[in-house]
Amino acid sequence: MKKALCIISGGMDSATCAYIAKAQNYEIIGLHFDYNQRTMEKERECFERICDDLGAKKIIIDGKFIAQIGGNSLTDLSMKIREDGVKKDVPNSYVPFRNGIFLSIAAAVAEINACEAIFIGVVEEDSSGYPDCTNTFIKAMERALNLGRTQKSKAQICTPLVNLNKSQIVQKALELGVKLEHTWSCYQNSEFACGVCDSCRLRLAGFAAAGISDPIKYKI
Amino acid sequence: MKKALCIISGGMDSATCAYIAKAQNYEIIGLHFDYNQRTMEKERECFERICDDLGAKKIIIDGKFIAQIGGNSLTDLSMKIREDGVKKDVPNSYVPFRNGIFLSIAAAVAEINACEAIFIGVVEEDSSGYPDCTNTFIKAMERALNLGRTQKSKAQICTPLVNLNKSQIVQKALELGVKLEHTWSCYQNSEFACGVCDSCRLRLAGFAAAGISDPIKYKI
Repeated sequence: MKKALCIISGGMDSATCAYIAKAQNYEIIGLHFDYNQRTMEKERECFERICDDLGAKKIIIDGKFIAQIGGNSLTDLSMKIREDGVKKDVPNSYVPFRNGIFLSIAAAVAEINACEAIFIGVVEEDSSGYPDCTNTFIKAMERALNLGRTQKSKAQICTPLVNLNKSQIVQKALELGVKLEHTWSCYQNSEFACGVCDSCRLRLAGFAAAGISDPIKYKI
Repeated sequence: MKKALCIISGGMDSATCAYIAKAQNYEIIGLHFDYNQRTMEKERECFERICDDLGAKKIIIDGKFIAQIGGNSLTDLSMKIREDGVKKDVPNSYVPFRNGIFLSIAAAVAEINACEAIFIGVVEEDSSGYPDCTNTFIKAMERALNLGRTQKSKAQICTPLVNLNKSQIVQKALELGVKLEHTWSCYQNSEFACGVCDSCRLRLAGFAAAGISDPIKYKI
């Protein structure tokens, strides 16, 4: 059985992405990063649940150096996460080159585990405009990681969500039976999702457009 | 003053590479990775000394996940480091996608510190044939990291040693006043360099060809 390494943060997008890999008959290895982000424990718990739902092997990487590098509001508690809506500029929740770092580490894990594919749930259209979520960037990374590894280790980076909007992702998740109550997308670490950070707004707008209610609880 | 982020392992090549950056009038930030490799303490000590020699700021990243991923003889003590000479095949001292991981993390550090250049001491010609040490790979990574970061964060990856042989590197090091007694290239963790691992053999051959004796001590 061919193997796929799926980067799973614990959010709706990465969970749906991993279910798509599963539907393509891959054996799934879930890859998760702890990086001292505000919601580290919550996201790790969601990762565990999603992997259990999928029957996937789990690999957790200590990426706390990302918080050491800093410069983003997900790891730096002194920075404020914007609540006034998604805009055109790159917000301070952008973690410098996070997906590049994740994909490079995934490249090594995929090489050791003989995975033919690496799945990552990046979304280009309906997003906060992070530069490391574009199709052009992913293609450039794919080329780099196939040039920089041994001949036998070729892998495709699969981004089945890259051109979907959030409403299409919600529909895809329902179609595949993703347990959306097992996911967490909010940037804030609180009992209920805040509903006003970019990530909540994009998720909620997706549910609204799909005409479905989100099974997780919101503060507002 | 323009800034360069120099990846410095503590070996002869990366030290010389950082001195080249210094000679090009960059302000130097030294970046080092601890990854539970056999010679972690030795290499870190050399990194510290080289940075002190250069008057460089130091950043040390905890990359111990590399040992967790495993599959290489530098971090896995149950694997034997070959001693019978440099050959054409990629040896087990190849750490999967190590330079890809290092450059991705460097990309984030460079973005936060506004560095215009990232220096890495890869050598393509006179090497063990690691796939992540080629010019083609580095160019592909450079493209990826400039696409995956914010617009203001363009950086050049500089590889001044990539087409040099080890003898030319020794000559360059002497010309620039690199304190070679402050470097460690051996893969083994012992008091004196083993002299027979690929890294020692390449270094010693470089000194021999340059007609100079290596200031560090060897077992044999």
